[in-house]
Order: sequence, then C-alpha cells, then structure tokens
Amino acid sequence: MPHPSNEPSCSIERSLGLLGERWTLLILRGIYSGCYRFSELQATLDIASNLLSTRLKTLEAGGVIRKLDYQMPAGSRRRASYHLTPAGEELRLILAAFQQWGDDNCPRPSGPSAFRRQRSTGQAVHVGFIDDEGREVAVSDVHFVAAPES
Amino acid sequence: MPHPSNEPSCSIERSLGLLGERWTLLILRGIYSGCYRFSELQATLDIASNLLSTRLKTLEAGGVIRKLDYQMPAGSRRRASYHLTPAGEELRLILAAFQQWGDDNCPRPSGPSAFRRQRSTGQAVHVGFIDDEGREVAVSDVHFVAAPES
Repeated sequence: MPHPSNEPSCSIERSLGLLGERWTLLILRGIYSGCYRFSELQATLDIASNLLSTRLKTLEAGGVIRKLDYQMPAGSRRRASYHLTPAGEELRLILAAFQQWGDDNCPRPSGPSAFRRQRSTGQAVHVGFIDDEGREVAVSDVHFVAAPES
Repeated sequence: MPHPSNEPSCSIERSLGLLGERWTLLILRGIYSGCYRFSELQATLDIASNLLSTRLKTLEAGGVIRKLDYQMPAGSRRRASYHLTPAGEELRLILAAFQQWGDDNCPRPSGPSAFRRQRSTGQAVHVGFIDDEGREVAVSDVHFVAAPES
C-alpha cells in the first residue's frame, strides 16, 4: 500500500529532507557552540545572510529550533536569537557521529579540534550502538532490517 | 597557529565536505541495503547517471567505497560494482543516527520502515553516547569541548 502522505517512508530520507541541505548541520553546530544570534552565526560561518535566513526558517518550521526576540539594551531594535528544541538537542548525536567519523577516518595532523565530554563528570564519550540491556554492540554487528509491510 | 593544510580543522566540517552533498548518504544507504551495481543504485534512487557517477567517484577518492569490476556472464562487457571500505562501514552509525532521529521526531503514521538489529542475536539496537566504562550517557549530558590550541 502506498504511504498515505507524500513524505518518504524511509526515516533517513525524511531526516535528510530537513537536515541534508548545505550549511544546515554547520548552523546547528554554531548554535550548540553558543552562537544564538543571527549576526554571530553569520560571522562564525561566513554565510550569506539570505541563505542563513532561509535555513533558519526551515529548521524552525521543522521543529528543530525556535526563534526568540531579545532587546538589548532596552529601547534598541528587537533582534532574534535561535535556540534548540528538544528535537534539536537530540541532533547532537548526529553531529557527534560526523565528528567522530572525521577524527577516526580523516584526522588532522595536530589532533581533534574538539572533544565530546559528559557534562556531569567530564569523562570522554563516544557514539556507538547499544542494545536494550545497555551493552555496546560493534558497528560491524549491526544491520538494517526492513519492516514487514502492513 | 593556522592549520597546516587547507582542510578545515573541525572534523564535522571535514566529514561534511566528503559526505554532505545531496544524494551522498542516500547512495551509501543503497549500498548498505545490497545495491552494489551502478544500474541497481540508479534504479533504486532515481538519480541522473552523471550525478551518481560523480558522487561515487568522490566517495571512492575519499576512501569510503572501492570499485570492483565484474563480468557476468563470462565474455560480456565488464561492469563496476561498489563496496564499502572499513571507513565506509563505520558510516553506518551516521545513517542509523539519521534514521533514529527521523523515527523519533518525524515518525510516519504506519511506523518505521526499517529497524536496526544486532546480526548475531537479532536484538534491537539504538544509537547513543557511551563513556569509557561502557555506560550509556544521556544526549542532554554531553557537550563539545574545544581542544586547547597547541
């Protein structure tokens, strides 16, 4: 039976439909690293403002970020800042997977430029597969299985 | 000190430089799901052959896939098939992170179209952060810390 909406049935495709455009993941990396304002994101990424604006609107419509107005100092023009929703916070896992893959497979001579740490303990963490009993499973021991068509 | 090569120092950017173009991750999804031949990938993805060819060359140059010739039946024209290198196998984690995020945050009404399973046990697995003692760490408890400049 065809999928009722015109969304792709594959969740990888749906995710890439929202996140797979050029700049999108780098904009999110900027927000994770504390650039919340349009001007900060633009300066950090060196991206054209119309493109940044378009990508931010897509991310807002997709429920990944929300836009807040701020006014500082009082009486000045209102400006926008961008903050992650819970769905946006979950994307940290995707960025971390890209980071880890780059450090493992195309390392820079002077070592990684950033590390992943547990906030509460400072301990290093990596991204991996975990089974329902909390045990890590090797990447080579995982495969994708198609769901039976209902 | 500036980075010695003209590669970005951030590993997320380096990974996206190789993998972030439109179609690239969907081509890899095709290879993971058993489409090894050019014609199979083209039919599954409905992608223009010059674009597929360009993306496959980039992935081969980046060490993610290798191209093998096959000839079947014997005496017929030689054709190419594409296979994952160990670095390409590791990318399964990135695709799985996109899949999981899509199923959690933009689910389709009839449920996921595919599941992640451990080959050896058939058990479901998810993608997450793991500390050095093998314990899962919540996504909200992880942050990225810049390395000290050397």
